Amino acid sequence: MNELLDLGIGEVASKLTGKEVSPVELTNAALERIESLEPKLNAYATLCAEPALAAAREAEREIAEGRHRGELHGVPVALKDLYDMAGLPTTCSSRVRHDHLADRDSACAERLKAAGAVLVGKTHTHEFAYGIMTPTTANPWNLEHMPGGSSGGSGATVASRGCFMAMGSDTGGSIRIPAAVCGTVGLKPTFGRVSRAGVASLSWSLDHVGPLTRTVKDAAICLKWLAGYDPRDPGSADEPVDDYLSGLEGGVKGLRIGVPANYFFDHVDGEVEAAVRSAIAELESQGAELREVTIPHAAQIMAVEFGLCLPEASAYHRAMLRERADLYEDDVRTFLEAGELIPATDYITALRVRQTMKRAWQSMYEEIDAVIGPAVASPATRRDQPTVTWPDGTEEPVTPVFVRLSAPANVTGLPSVAVPCGFTEGGLPIAFQVIGSPFGEARILRIARAYEAATDWHTRTPPG
Amino acid sequence: MNELLDLGIGEVASKLTGKEVSPVELTNAALERIESLEPKLNAYATLCAEPALAAAREAEREIAEGRHRGELHGVPVALKDLYDMAGLPTTCSSRVRHDHLADRDSACAERLKAAGAVLVGKTHTHEFAYGIMTPTTANPWNLEHMPGGSSGGSGATVASRGCFMAMGSDTGGSIRIPAAVCGTVGLKPTFGRVSRAGVASLSWSLDHVGPLTRTVKDAAICLKWLAGYDPRDPGSADEPVDDYLSGLEGGVKGLRIGVPANYFFDHVDGEVEAAVRSAIAELESQGAELREVTIPHAAQIMAVEFGLCLPEASAYHRAMLRERADLYEDDVRTFLEAGELIPATDYITALRVRQTMKRAWQSMYEEIDAVIGPAVASPATRRDQPTVTWPDGTEEPVTPVFVRLSAPANVTGLPSVAVPCGFTEGGLPIAFQVIGSPFGEARILRIARAYEAATDWHTRTPPG
Repeated sequence: MNELLDLGIGEVASKLTGKEVSPVELTNAALERIESLEPKLNAYATLCAEPALAAAREAEREIAEGRHRGELHGVPVALKDLYDMAGLPTTCSSRVRHDHLADRDSACAERLKAAGAVLVGKTHTHEFAYGIMTPTTANPWNLEHMPGGSSGGSGATVASRGCFMAMGSDTGGSIRIPAAVCGTVGLKPTFGRVSRAGVASLSWSLDHVGPLTRTVKDAAICLKWLAGYDPRDPGSADEPVDDYLSGLEGGVKGLRIGVPANYFFDHVDGEVEAAVRSAIAELESQGAELREVTIPHAAQIMAVEFGLCLPEASAYHRAMLRERADLYEDDVRTFLEAGELIPATDYITALRVRQTMKRAWQSMYEEIDAVIGPAVASPATRRDQPTVTWPDGTEEPVTPVFVRLSAPANVTGLPSVAVPCGFTEGGLPIAFQVIGSPFGEARILRIARAYEAATDWHTRTPPG
Repeated sequence: MNELLDLGIGEVASKLTGKEVSPVELTNAALERIESLEPKLNAYATLCAEPALAAAREAEREIAEGRHRGELHGVPVALKDLYDMAGLPTTCSSRVRHDHLADRDSACAERLKAAGAVLVGKTHTHEFAYGIMTPTTANPWNLEHMPGGSSGGSGATVASRGCFMAMGSDTGGSIRIPAAVCGTVGLKPTFGRVSRAGVASLSWSLDHVGPLTRTVKDAAICLKWLAGYDPRDPGSADEPVDDYLSGLEGGVKGLRIGVPANYFFDHVDGEVEAAVRSAIAELESQGAELREVTIPHAAQIMAVEFGLCLPEASAYHRAMLRERADLYEDDVRTFLEAGELIPATDYITALRVRQTMKRAWQSMYEEIDAVIGPAVASPATRRDQPTVTWPDGTEEPVTPVFVRLSAPANVTGLPSVAVPCGFTEGGLPIAFQVIGSPFGEARILRIARAYEAATDWHTRTPPG
């Protein structure tokens, strides 16, 4: 059974339709694996073994009757605990939500259920997704290190083979950061591509939802089932959904890949830089054309990210903060209080600079097909580590260390996928990211897959 | 010559192509008319007789050679003095701009020049368009009354036959208010329909630009030449431009017209209400179906209008206010200072309520084709009048009196046209407005034209 949990979604789907394994057996194996690791990882806020097994039995019946719904039918998956599932609490890993109960499925839960996926549980997040840690959860590659955040539970469970996919959300990097430091693939689609309806908001103009998976192909499969217009999400885009699978193995020959001359390799861990540059060289050896690019308005990226996120988060939490300030963790409460002090004129300036930034990136994409850089500047830090010290002696708090390379795709809304590309000497995962043009998910997945197909990082399993 | 100035653009265009009159004669007549009225009206910040006559001579030559560019070729028009014209100051009727000089044409100036129109001058506005008065300018129907604002100079000159069209801008009603109180047609197109590039901003998410004209057909002609996507305006919409002229005389038979049961007839001047209800009855007699509608979230409209406008204006003026506070008029400086005190969380709340409001209006349009109500709640007030007293004894400052019925189309971005529909006993114009669905300009113009064709208000000329 354990080998089944090592397979990709496409492979396990063949075994399910071929009746080599039943969804109930697979779900039991996943639940056992999760339960055996929870004492160490603490990745889940809620496990839902009973409903999951009921869904698995239903999938078993349907598949037996020849009614196969597709790649996710009978496949165990999880949701970050910001996503509503009817009848369950959405805790957002916060005491503020101790009495919350969702009465309706989030759009993603609805779509995954319609695809026949088996929802095994809800994963831990940094409180309300407002941070790059997940204090409750450990990194499966080294329990003393953080699993990244805010979708840390999703990264930890997918990396440790607890389930085949876990949904995350990404406001400044919260899908790609845990994916990168846990050694999974993490896909932040274009703003508006996947509906956020029924997902607790951090910052509505920067929030994106998407999957963490073991492989690039699995990410493409999940996006196929998740993407589409939804009037319930005011940011949802009424754009046609591409076929993410048919061109996936098309390779990179002739694709123009932008290699940043600035920003993306400033203050980056040496092992990370070496692994990412080697990944870029691999793609060049496969026929990609490398073009040096200058990231526009680089000095303003973090100001815009935080200038938008802080007041948007404070607006969303305003009423709750009045009623339950004492139930928030100190770090999140401080952020929320700080956000209330930001004047509208500064927020409007951030909106306008963002607009200029989006246009400048758009111009850049006239010459290239994608930008590649490190997904994050550092491997997973220790769980209690407040700062990173760079070789030039400067010390940087961990929040900017992990946010500054992922934030460009939040501010611009562009799609980005984090892809494993090695390990540090200490055994911690390293990842690069591919950032595409609007609604260019098919292309960035194809580039990511070309790299993955030539390497075996995604087959490695954490110890234990 | 004076009878020529009474014609519509379509009629005068025939005379120009038929060589019954030359653009130079027409421009001279317009300039003479303007100059004879300026001592009373003071509608213009800048008159540009020389460049206008040069453009007229060029148009004369081209028409003589058979190169006729279209309806606006050789026709005298004006721009509100927020619009850049290369080589001229854009004063925004403010001392703050005493040393300003535009080095490039605004998009509308460019389009009007390309259409062959003759730009005779730049009209007065409330300082930086921030108000419903135009303190410099008088109403041609009664010099002791205000011409509305902020595009008051445009309203006064079009009503008094100084030129055939004058551009306005409309953030809370600043095209429709002066149109209504001066007895002209005023068209605020859908947000994004006409480019704002090169027009000084008041509030970028509420600002619209559009024409004030003598007739509905003239508005349709002008929109034909003005509409279209422009990447220079971040709010510009890449939507196809309709044919506004071919269906203009199609009538209203079978069109469903929403008559508001709330908001639009609350605290409205008795003569205004009677004239507007009689206009609605006229449309019904022509075959329109009336449907009672409830304006959604009516109680929040003004909070959203001002909650967006104040901080957006303050963000735009921030640097200038630091340098030149003493050069602003007191009322505008106070607004700008107040806007700096609004927290981002309140602005974000306004953005979110607006989103809800837009959706609710969108739902309303599933049952109707247009909404009709008064364009403004009162006829032109006296120039020194700070408030209006209603029959129930309540007193209301003039700003909300004039903004509250026009603001819904700014907050929602929906197209709206103000149409003359009578006069008070005191001889002041009255107007209704037709509000359409997004990019539904052709339909609201058709409704407006059906009314206009059955009446003769637009043929009346102010005294003097």
